[in-house]
Amino acid sequence: MENHTHEDRREVVYSQLEKSGLDVLLVSFLPNVRYLTGFTGSNALLLLSPGRSQLLTDPRYTIQAAQEVSCQVTVVKKSLWKYVPIVVGRSRWKNIGFDSTHLTVELLHSLQSALPLGAVLQPAPPLVETARMVKSESEIAAIRQSVNTCSSAFERVLKRIRPTMTEIEVAAELDYEMRRLGADGPAFDTIVATGPRSALPHAHPSTATLQTNQLLLIDMGASQTGYASDMTRTQSIGKISPRLRRAYGAVLEAQLASLDAIRPNVTAGSVDRAARRVLRAHKLDKAFVHSTGHGLGLEIHEPPRLGKADKSLLRPGMVITVEPGVYLQGLGGIRIEDTVLVTETGCEVLTPTKKELLAL
Amino acid sequence: MENHTHEDRREVVYSQLEKSGLDVLLVSFLPNVRYLTGFTGSNALLLLSPGRSQLLTDPRYTIQAAQEVSCQVTVVKKSLWKYVPIVVGRSRWKNIGFDSTHLTVELLHSLQSALPLGAVLQPAPPLVETARMVKSESEIAAIRQSVNTCSSAFERVLKRIRPTMTEIEVAAELDYEMRRLGADGPAFDTIVATGPRSALPHAHPSTATLQTNQLLLIDMGASQTGYASDMTRTQSIGKISPRLRRAYGAVLEAQLASLDAIRPNVTAGSVDRAARRVLRAHKLDKAFVHSTGHGLGLEIHEPPRLGKADKSLLRPGMVITVEPGVYLQGLGGIRIEDTVLVTETGCEVLTPTKKELLAL
Repeated sequence: MENHTHEDRREVVYSQLEKSGLDVLLVSFLPNVRYLTGFTGSNALLLLSPGRSQLLTDPRYTIQAAQEVSCQVTVVKKSLWKYVPIVVGRSRWKNIGFDSTHLTVELLHSLQSALPLGAVLQPAPPLVETARMVKSESEIAAIRQSVNTCSSAFERVLKRIRPTMTEIEVAAELDYEMRRLGADGPAFDTIVATGPRSALPHAHPSTATLQTNQLLLIDMGASQTGYASDMTRTQSIGKISPRLRRAYGAVLEAQLASLDAIRPNVTAGSVDRAARRVLRAHKLDKAFVHSTGHGLGLEIHEPPRLGKADKSLLRPGMVITVEPGVYLQGLGGIRIEDTVLVTETGCEVLTPTKKELLAL
Repeated sequence: MENHTHEDRREVVYSQLEKSGLDVLLVSFLPNVRYLTGFTGSNALLLLSPGRSQLLTDPRYTIQAAQEVSCQVTVVKKSLWKYVPIVVGRSRWKNIGFDSTHLTVELLHSLQSALPLGAVLQPAPPLVETARMVKSESEIAAIRQSVNTCSSAFERVLKRIRPTMTEIEVAAELDYEMRRLGADGPAFDTIVATGPRSALPHAHPSTATLQTNQLLLIDMGASQTGYASDMTRTQSIGKISPRLRRAYGAVLEAQLASLDAIRPNVTAGSVDRAARRVLRAHKLDKAFVHSTGHGLGLEIHEPPRLGKADKSLLRPGMVITVEPGVYLQGLGGIRIEDTVLVTETGCEVLTPTKKELLAL
């Protein structure tokens, strides 16, 4: 969890490159480029090789790249991809690793046909993704800030919610407050779902007005200095039925059981199963239709995934969401989600917002 | 420009499928799935084949897919990709077209190894992208609405701008007003750049406060019922130097020249060159570091691209942006951008916002 620089991060990947028998890693996925260089523009390729890494970008980013990036920057007027074979030729690289989970078939083919003789493209192991799973102190500080922005915005807007508002209006208020509090924007499309619409786990906010004696589900996150936060809270507007109140209690119990299961060296799957076990006891496990959580950082969804059968081991410095939910068609849905840091001894719930059922 | 349904759109692609010798098209890119089915969820695959199209999605979207989609829907509990070979086997499809510009190398390989004997994957021509280039009446109506939301939000916020505000605050106000006016959200990260920062063509809004006697560049767009709008305006806060005022005049002249060049059957490149010619006469062509525009619709960037050498022909019903710009390092940048409909006789500028240099 040391506070490392972009150069330190590149060093970590260099050491793995050599073990994989690669001369260079072609990094095309922008969150990986940002992680390794600090570049925040929308068009870049990074050729990562010990002592001669270079970032390719286009003339729109000449000034910005010079400000942000510590390795060599080459500004390319035409396609960045067409420039890669030129760099490969000059550098006499032979074994070129690429990211098969992001590179498209078309780009691979056009690159293959343009490379110098003897240069070979091969799928690289997920070196950058693996490095990114455990966050540094500065990354954790950025996530904390993002989490606090998200919670503060939520709490401010909650005080202003009136039954005459539409879902879209509430979402707009939440996004606005996150921006005012320093977010670059929402980390994903904010979900505001009222009444039976809350049973759609990924509802878009609609023009429906909030309904009294119904649930209101809000799933939101900030993106701040590039880092995501993620929180869901479900509240009632007025009184809800005993069945929904019991379901709320079950989801909260499941969420706490998952948090309790988090510590270094347990599998991601065991955290998921902890929630599922509680919901099964309440006969609600079939209404829990997604996995318990996911890593987050520069992306809103990163490894590890907290699914039933997931075998990746949790490690201190990982940041994950814990978000069991129950969806009852025609009645409503309940989800409770925190952003959580795995620590040496267990976990720290970063999200400060209370999670008792709140009646607005 | 007829007002077609999702079924009509699928029929158009079916007829092209047969000509390409394909039994089925595997549509994995979500805007294409939405175009062909109306499905707005975040996880889907569409197997498109005359008379037996089916959409695959996961249990989070069971209810939503039933509401939105007119073709067969199959809810798959595990990976949608792993379910594709099962459908292919049952349907006895042999020639399976895929989208090589979006499918990743890893997904292609895992799909290839799981297909039944005799079934072959082959890159398909851009059938859906081509169909999407010319918009139907209902699509044009949606874009008009999105354009109007964008302009109304801009005009409302412009009245409230004070020199003490930060770029981020202005961006937050713009996004908030777009949402209040009915947008799903901004179509892309709103750009608000003041003073020399406006010379960064894609600046993120920062905590810099607006500077008097400087330029203020705002590039924004709404996403409404799925459709994008895109507009840039540059104004002055107080007085700006004669050099910047002249540059503004040149960019406006270039933008009008490009609009004037738009009509059916001219190349996209000729519209770009019209702007470049004007800027060359003002000795500003080297400060124009990007292309003149792009198509937009379900995506903020779609074909055609309005680049110097682009040979695609404009057709009535295409919707494009026209956005020349000039960037003077250390001084500031100017860009003027409208969303424009290609008509039978020329074009209709959809963006209603004035474009004279406005001093705030």
